[in-house]
Amino acid sequence: MKKVVLKKLEDLGKEVVEKLEKGENPYIEIPVRGLSNVIYDEKRRRIILGDKVLKRYFFNVAHAKKFMQTFLVAAFCKNLLEENIHASLRETFYSLKRTLPNSKENTFDTQDESDPVIVDLEVTLDVLREQLHINADARGRLVGDLVIKDRGDVIDCSKLGSGGWFIPSNVEDIEFEKINAKFVLVVEKVGAFERLHEDGFWRKHKCILIGTVGQPARGCRRMIQRLAYEFGLPVYVFVDADPYGWYIYSVIKYGSMSLAHISDRLGTQTAKFIGLTISDIEKYNLKNYTIKARDVDIKRAKELLKYQWFKSKEWQREINLMIKKGIKAELEALASKGLRFVSDKYLPEKIKNKEFLD
Amino acid sequence: MKKVVLKKLEDLGKEVVEKLEKGENPYIEIPVRGLSNVIYDEKRRRIILGDKVLKRYFFNVAHAKKFMQTFLVAAFCKNLLEENIHASLRETFYSLKRTLPNSKENTFDTQDESDPVIVDLEVTLDVLREQLHINADARGRLVGDLVIKDRGDVIDCSKLGSGGWFIPSNVEDIEFEKINAKFVLVVEKVGAFERLHEDGFWRKHKCILIGTVGQPARGCRRMIQRLAYEFGLPVYVFVDADPYGWYIYSVIKYGSMSLAHISDRLGTQTAKFIGLTISDIEKYNLKNYTIKARDVDIKRAKELLKYQWFKSKEWQREINLMIKKGIKAELEALASKGLRFVSDKYLPEKIKNKEFLD
Repeated sequence: MKKVVLKKLEDLGKEVVEKLEKGENPYIEIPVRGLSNVIYDEKRRRIILGDKVLKRYFFNVAHAKKFMQTFLVAAFCKNLLEENIHASLRETFYSLKRTLPNSKENTFDTQDESDPVIVDLEVTLDVLREQLHINADARGRLVGDLVIKDRGDVIDCSKLGSGGWFIPSNVEDIEFEKINAKFVLVVEKVGAFERLHEDGFWRKHKCILIGTVGQPARGCRRMIQRLAYEFGLPVYVFVDADPYGWYIYSVIKYGSMSLAHISDRLGTQTAKFIGLTISDIEKYNLKNYTIKARDVDIKRAKELLKYQWFKSKEWQREINLMIKKGIKAELEALASKGLRFVSDKYLPEKIKNKEFLD
Repeated sequence: MKKVVLKKLEDLGKEVVEKLEKGENPYIEIPVRGLSNVIYDEKRRRIILGDKVLKRYFFNVAHAKKFMQTFLVAAFCKNLLEENIHASLRETFYSLKRTLPNSKENTFDTQDESDPVIVDLEVTLDVLREQLHINADARGRLVGDLVIKDRGDVIDCSKLGSGGWFIPSNVEDIEFEKINAKFVLVVEKVGAFERLHEDGFWRKHKCILIGTVGQPARGCRRMIQRLAYEFGLPVYVFVDADPYGWYIYSVIKYGSMSLAHISDRLGTQTAKFIGLTISDIEKYNLKNYTIKARDVDIKRAKELLKYQWFKSKEWQREINLMIKKGIKAELEALASKGLRFVSDKYLPEKIKNKEFLD
């Protein structure tokens, strides 16, 4: 893969030089990002970019600076790959910021300028930022009966105590040596992760347990996808019964609008929503443990209703039920039935009866 | 330890029952929290609680509900300890929330009611919430040449790939089997952690590397303290050159005002500030890589100037320099000197020359 990425970077540069030598005006074609070019691909169940493309020219006063910035980042990435070293978005900015000779013009003034250029490159070359050796943020954790190999270390994720493995920002080079699991369970909350881990849920039900700590970071999403696609593991997402939880689920499954160009590499189209559902409130008698929805929740729910990827009958019913009742619920509400209820009854029943929202 | 905590919980209950049997009005004494009772103990270099105490009575209309709540939580914790199971703050709330028979009165209406009661108990019994088996949030990560034992697993933290060990919310029961380190380096930023980890900094300089991911969670602070106090390891804190970075450092070192009652168990009084300093900007020629301080930064800096624990000549100079120059800097600014500059030169020099702020 590294060779492919290096080749793409080199080709990008060569093309420009060739055009210059022929006396032409070099340009790069960058797929347009942003709402106007984001579409939902119903067949593949993905949020993707449409085919609008913009051309960034070298000889164009309005483009020249961005053109230069794009090639500064490209050259930086080539170096990273050749030296086998990685950098964060912020390190990239500081590494490339400088004042151009005989001018007061900076290459980049703020990180707000370099971040989008990195995404431009990601889109243009059709590679992941991580494959360019630029790392994103990192947050999540993982436990389960699997052995992974990373930077020469062999890590048995079933023997990491109460903590688990910290999912790094870049999981591209991780190899899976052994996987003994029937599914992947993704939980949003730290408390829920620790509950299920302490209860030995992953051991008993043969699953890989991933804690995202809120909206999952890119490394975490990529990890979920690799487990799902490379090993055919079903993925169940366990989040709060509210628009924020639904959104986390939809980002894991379909990708996000801001990263629509890489939904195929970050999204897990087979992921299913295991709970908490608004219907569970009735079923498990959790009425006294709900929270009144705020105006902003209702507003957000109404937005989600319109998203094409929430158009299924089941999801429309679920979201409308929330709006009608004006309530939401946290997954910890299940603790009202006893701390281990979620591990001993709720999740096993859901899985056994295949009670998922898709 | 568990036996001691159980005994304290039992004694709390017994005392009340005895008073009731004697026809007296039972009460519990709770040290007052909040600014009016927070003091800085200069000798021990800790933010601590003063000796103001309030009495919470059983037979007092204004106290009765809180009295009941305190004992509900105490009984819940006793169960947790006896069953050897842990709960999050939120699980605690949902486990205890119910409507009292023949009334419309709830034991707790919102988590805002149960959280402070848990702290009350922590203060009153002089134990950590974690020792009551109630877990806080978790976020950080750790790598280094050390072997820890946790829940029966033996974890070699030098062989965890690029990820590292996820520091759980509760590190009370962790045992250290082997430690081969000369100091602990605590870094705030994910990117900086991954930089130092990729560069093999901890291996070369024999240190334990801890990434807090922002303001450190309780488990992370406790971990730092245990390494510092149980093994006499120096602790160096590496954060941004701005009031937020300084505050992270001060919380690690002195504790915080809101958790003043447990500074002795969460704070690491020997921690030192290794950088980034405002003076570094001059020394390493980082002027072009600084950020203009916002009004809120200056305001916060002026507040810090008044804190007793920032009264040393060196800190006053540092903070005043920031205010005078009106700038701040991120630790990634060092990347402008080359990505590995921080690992190869900046940190080793600082450590060798003992250039710390204390």
